[in-house]
Amino acid sequence: MASVARVTTITVRSEKGFDDAVASGVARASETLRNVTGAWVKEQKVEVSDGRVSGWSVTLEVTFVLDD
Amino acid sequence: MASVARVTTITVRSEKGFDDAVASGVARASETLRNVTGAWVKEQKVEVSDGRVSGWSVTLEVTFVLDD
Amino acid sequence: MASVARVTTITVRSEKGFDDAVASGVARASETLRNVTGAWVKEQKVEVSDGRVSGWSVTLEVTFVLDD
Amino acid sequence: MASVARVTTITVRSEKGFDDAVASGVARASETLRNVTGAWVKEQKVEVSDGRVSGWSVTLEVTFVLDD
Amino acid sequence: MASVARVTTITVRSEKGFDDAVASGVARASETLRNVTGAWVKEQKVEVSDGRVSGWSVTLEVTFVLDD
Amino acid sequence: MASVARVTTITVRSEKGFDDAVASGVARASETLRNVTGAWVKEQKVEVSDGRVSGWSVTLEVTFVLDD
Amino acid sequence: MASVARVTTITVRSEKGFDDAVASGVARASETLRNVTGAWVKEQKVEVSDGRVSGWSVTLEVTFVLDD
Amino acid sequence: MASVARVTTITVRSEKGFDDAVASGVARASETLRNVTGAWVKEQKVEVSDGRVSGWSVTLEVTFVLDD
Amino acid sequence: MASVARVTTITVRSEKGFDDAVASGVARASETLRNVTGAWVKEQKVEVSDGRVSGWSVTLEVTFVLDD
Amino acid sequence: MASVARVTTITVRSEKGFDDAVASGVARASETLRNVTGAWVKEQKVEVSDGRVSGWSVTLEVTFVLDD
Amino acid sequence: MASVARVTTITVRSEKGFDDAVASGVARASETLRNVTGAWVKEQKVEVSDGRVSGWSVTLEVTFVLDD
Amino acid sequence: MASVARVTTITVRSEKGFDDAVASGVARASETLRNVTGAWVKEQKVEVSDGRVSGWSVTLEVTFVLDD
Repeated sequence: MASVARVTTITVRSEKGFDDAVASGVARASETLRNVTGAWVKEQKVEVSDGRVSGWSVTLEVTFVLDD
Repeated sequence: MASVARVTTITVRSEKGFDDAVASGVARASETLRNVTGAWVKEQKVEVSDGRVSGWSVTLEVTFVLDD
Repeated sequence: MASVARVTTITVRSEKGFDDAVASGVARASETLRNVTGAWVKEQKVEVSDGRVSGWSVTLEVTFVLDD
Repeated sequence: MASVARVTTITVRSEKGFDDAVASGVARASETLRNVTGAWVKEQKVEVSDGRVSGWSVTLEVTFVLDD
Repeated sequence: MASVARVTTITVRSEKGFDDAVASGVARASETLRNVTGAWVKEQKVEVSDGRVSGWSVTLEVTFVLDD
Repeated sequence: MASVARVTTITVRSEKGFDDAVASGVARASETLRNVTGAWVKEQKVEVSDGRVSGWSVTLEVTFVLDD
Repeated sequence: MASVARVTTITVRSEKGFDDAVASGVARASETLRNVTGAWVKEQKVEVSDGRVSGWSVTLEVTFVLDD
Repeated sequence: MASVARVTTITVRSEKGFDDAVASGVARASETLRNVTGAWVKEQKVEVSDGRVSGWSVTLEVTFVLDD
Repeated sequence: MASVARVTTITVRSEKGFDDAVASGVARASETLRNVTGAWVKEQKVEVSDGRVSGWSVTLEVTFVLDD
Repeated sequence: MASVARVTTITVRSEKGFDDAVASGVARASETLRNVTGAWVKEQKVEVSDGRVSGWSVTLEVTFVLDD
Repeated sequence: MASVARVTTITVRSEKGFDDAVASGVARASETLRNVTGAWVKEQKVEVSDGRVSGWSVTLEVTFVLDD
Repeated sequence: MASVARVTTITVRSEKGFDDAVASGVARASETLRNVTGAWVKEQKVEVSDGRVSGWSVTLEVTFVLDD
């Protein structure tokens, strides 16, 4: 039998760093989606204020397996 | 705290022009999705009948912020 | 009036071949989504065990028309 | 039976705007090609003179159906 | 001496499958073009009706050698 | 003798539309740069508020010829 | 502990079809490489003779796990 | 009035070098096409025999202006 | 009124890690450019000496708002 | 005299994070390859279990200089 | 300490050939920019007059190190 | 029977020019690899010292046929 997964794209902003942004995005996606199995980091950006990085954001392609 | 937005892709066809296609797509997306904040125009196509443009369609990547 | 379609991405794995993976993905998507009109094959991969192909998977961008 | 369409690339320059460039390109292509059914806008450029836009040009991939 | 080939793009739709679409496109191109030597499969799409694949289409870049 | 042009990237936001964004960007670039000859529209985005487009922004690659 | 896989690119030509080309490439790669786990189909081409497809070739990115 | 140019793709092989391949392709295209104005070098490949380069080939996108 | 931002590309090398490279690049850009608002991480590379990472470098596209 | 380097692609999975994945991949590649001089991070992915990141993997293009 | 380089894009046209275009662009860039260390050839185009190449132009991404 | 070729990536630096870099890379690859049949020029870069080009480097994807 065939198995099917969906891929959805999210953008996550953290005030701590890229690693936290990825972890937060995965956690948030798992609240609404069942069976999240992975995510691909597609983009990494930073926000800048007064010459310092004040925000880190990542675009993730999140994969989750569909129930049969 | 981290904030999260989702990105969804739609294709919109208008009989008036590209600007109307973008506006219609944004309006339609906002009916079902809360907190739409922006859209990226990824593709622009036209349909042709009898040597004239009879339809304009755009592919949009629509961003909307997820509620906490 | 403008008409709007959505595009969603799925990954489908079949134990029979690429054609079956595409057909299964389309069938599975049509169970939950109304008015699926087409799909674009974006990626094709195989799994290998003991020097033989043991699984075929495709990534599909599925288009479905939104009801008004 | 299989149906076949060809895709040809044209670049069109208008002195009025992007919309006129697309319409002109479609009209010009339809003079020599039968059964033009659509076009994809691949690139949009402007020419500039004295700080103002003096020309709009688009690159189109024009599709036309081949007669059997 | 230099030898020259041209590349032209076609889109072919079959009601049987991707393999038939490729074969039909190659056959159709060879009717009008001499010395077709190969084709590159650039895109693969399916049409869907009632949850089943009802059409297979491929975009081919067809190469043919120009006579001197 | 060789002639040399530079390419610089700008992002312009207009509250009127894409055409105005392009024209404004070209005008603004021409204030500081001499001999602007053209611009390539690389990206088109919209901002959305309350289900309506409230801002149009374009990313332009602006070309200007260097004096000898 | 970290696990490491290598990715190598091969091009395979079959006289039977794309499926056979993939299977042959996987089999051939497994003769010299241990622990081949999968392959990604990157390109699909056909050779043409007398208006018919006479060869199918695929470019594969083959993954194999490195022993510790 | 709008002006229109077409873009066509050719592949040229020379036994002398890349520069000769480009020049030959431009010359050959100008035999059949009127008003060739330029060409973009998209790909550069070499053929190898006995550890030496025996052929140079380029893929060109040739632009020519259409008569009104 | 339209607002305009410029995008400039820098490459930054750090001996501490990717995060430090991003922060250093943002700080360095802010010394010479006013109103830096963000940066996009386009590439990430490492230098290697004696089997260990000895340098981390990132390519950033830095955005800064132009004064009116 | 000309100098030559090879580029090879590896995928590395770590249970600690992206930085560890890069470092591990570089270390592992240096065991079998002499003169590794750098690596380019091409892709970053995470595995997810129970809503948390359980694995970090990177795809690296590793460069090593060939001995004469 | 971190070191920073900037990347700027130029287009250079020569009446002699591609090699001259690259050399001229590098020389011209070095007149205004200090510490130019390299350049990446991104595009190669030719102009055509009367069936012969009459101009060669290249697009270069020029790198120069910023003073501390 | 299926035939199989491998593709490997090398970067070659010459102090004479791009043509020499390609020729040197092909020659060097043929020392260790049997049956090299061709190479694709993927990237072209120059090194700059004191406003002059001091090195030319190319990235090649080299194809060689595997023995049965």
